[in-house]
Amino acid sequence: MKQFRRMVVLTDGHVDPETAKTAFCLLRYRADDVAAVLDRQSAGKTCREVFGLGGSIPVVESLKDAEGADALVIGIAPPGGKIPQRWRPIILEALARRMSVVSGLHDFLRDDAEFCRAAERGGARLVDLRDNTERDVARRKGFREKCLRLHTIGNDCCSGKMVAAVELARGMVCAGIDARFVATGQTGMLVSGAGCAVDRVIADFLAGAVENLVLANQRHEAIVVEGQGSLFHPRYSCVALGLLHGLMPDGLVLCYTMERKALYGMEHISMPALERVVEFYESAARLMHPCRVIAVAVNGVGRAAEAVAAECERTEARLGLPACDPIRHGPDKLVNAAVRLRKELGK
Amino acid sequence: MKQFRRMVVLTDGHVDPETAKTAFCLLRYRADDVAAVLDRQSAGKTCREVFGLGGSIPVVESLKDAEGADALVIGIAPPGGKIPQRWRPIILEALARRMSVVSGLHDFLRDDAEFCRAAERGGARLVDLRDNTERDVARRKGFREKCLRLHTIGNDCCSGKMVAAVELARGMVCAGIDARFVATGQTGMLVSGAGCAVDRVIADFLAGAVENLVLANQRHEAIVVEGQGSLFHPRYSCVALGLLHGLMPDGLVLCYTMERKALYGMEHISMPALERVVEFYESAARLMHPCRVIAVAVNGVGRAAEAVAAECERTEARLGLPACDPIRHGPDKLVNAAVRLRKELGK
Repeated sequence: MKQFRRMVVLTDGHVDPETAKTAFCLLRYRADDVAAVLDRQSAGKTCREVFGLGGSIPVVESLKDAEGADALVIGIAPPGGKIPQRWRPIILEALARRMSVVSGLHDFLRDDAEFCRAAERGGARLVDLRDNTERDVARRKGFREKCLRLHTIGNDCCSGKMVAAVELARGMVCAGIDARFVATGQTGMLVSGAGCAVDRVIADFLAGAVENLVLANQRHEAIVVEGQGSLFHPRYSCVALGLLHGLMPDGLVLCYTMERKALYGMEHISMPALERVVEFYESAARLMHPCRVIAVAVNGVGRAAEAVAAECERTEARLGLPACDPIRHGPDKLVNAAVRLRKELGK
Repeated sequence: MKQFRRMVVLTDGHVDPETAKTAFCLLRYRADDVAAVLDRQSAGKTCREVFGLGGSIPVVESLKDAEGADALVIGIAPPGGKIPQRWRPIILEALARRMSVVSGLHDFLRDDAEFCRAAERGGARLVDLRDNTERDVARRKGFREKCLRLHTIGNDCCSGKMVAAVELARGMVCAGIDARFVATGQTGMLVSGAGCAVDRVIADFLAGAVENLVLANQRHEAIVVEGQGSLFHPRYSCVALGLLHGLMPDGLVLCYTMERKALYGMEHISMPALERVVEFYESAARLMHPCRVIAVAVNGVGRAAEAVAAECERTEARLGLPACDPIRHGPDKLVNAAVRLRKELGK
């Protein structure tokens, strides 16, 4: 994924940070490699105007407006994981232009005969980020004790776990620790250039896939493994537990989106209290390995600065844990908590 | 799976109840449909002599000794999920004899070109019990309140969850309740003729697949859904949680194998205390729905009658829950606990 240096990101009408998570993260972390965003409704503007990110990167109407682009990246997670019909001509045009097409959807590009033919004709690549051949069960052997394992968790999905993990790992590097962000989802993989979309792994092999990610990265002093879903989300709790038990983290960073009242995609289920989230996550993690929540990352996207600051203060008082919005305030509080844990554990 | 009425079960040297779980369960629950067991080491004996089950069903050396058989069923779960090389000629011979071949392994028969060709030549079928096309996420809608949902859980895998679920459902039917066993693994599917091997489902869709099993069966007064793995097993905890949260059981039956000291397949990890298992399972289940452990099924296979009785007594005293070995003692205690719960909940 790192080889693409002139990507066009397809959003086409989805400019909210939850649906267009992939686009937002590419603009945040790989802006230098983004040539344009293709969004017919917002064409002619800059990315800063539309997304509040990405500076003067143009929002274009057509691939013709992005000469020299090397890849088209699907920038949203459409409901049901299906490619919208109206995007098919854009994908086919990209392939005809010899651009690779990169998708994180559950429905694979390579299972689409028309896309395959077009890719072959143009000599272009179809990249399905969620595709995997994981077939190892966890063995619980070979973990390097000196490597600090950190993990971002959430009370819900789409709560800022990937961003918090990237920011924490970067902050630790700035603090002189050889820390590595480990991606477990398609967007994180685009950001870091490696990883595994664990939610797509066959359930029996999920913990094994996570273990393999640890083994592949534990030469670093610390790894920060991005979380997926939540133990409290009826759809994705199994993914969250497979991650937690495959990884055996030493410390957790709890991420949540402020003022969200119901679970993502399940408006009939109200959000659990943060205290319960901390308590249950710790007890679940401790089935395998000593672990505790060390800090909280508040996702205050779209909220006023004062409201976010007040939210962080309230959460610090409620949970007795340092809390910050890593985007707005920087990750220092998370980094300090990680440094303290590392010292405490002698890692 | 119910259409096969003259099955040959292939065990070939694996006659312990854990590795040859599928063979044992077929002999226990579908003996009338088993024509023979193929096991070259024990050929010439009866199933009762070799397995302690299945009466005078012959153990044979070759398919030639089982004229008129309609299916060859792989009766073991080999390490790594691969078909042993020395079994290939037997499978090919079965296909040449127009017998279907039924497998619950992760490695699918239909992905083996030689098996496919042989099946086509003989007009025979390859049945991969673990194959699925599950792509629904859980919706948490449409559950019928009046249907009592029961679930067998374990401190480990291979702890008797399937047998306990079958016995409990049968016992409830005898007690006049319209109860249905719901299979979630390949062996249970062979026993009941329906179900889904949930450990093979893509993690994102596991809870959805379980929800679909509930929706398909909740016309009954009660369902008893077989558990898989354990929240305490590092390999399979995600499967166990996806089941628990997709199903939202009202009551749990805890299953364990007496005197087992370490986790199945992970000799370096000791067994958790039963009290912790009860406590953590209840807290995990209650994230979604009110639930409690109502009884304990002790798996005393291969132990002396007095030892099993003493174990059940000790467990009853320890946990304050009724405990029995459903095979040795019958499922009455489990049934009574289910009947009490049903009355209490007004279902």
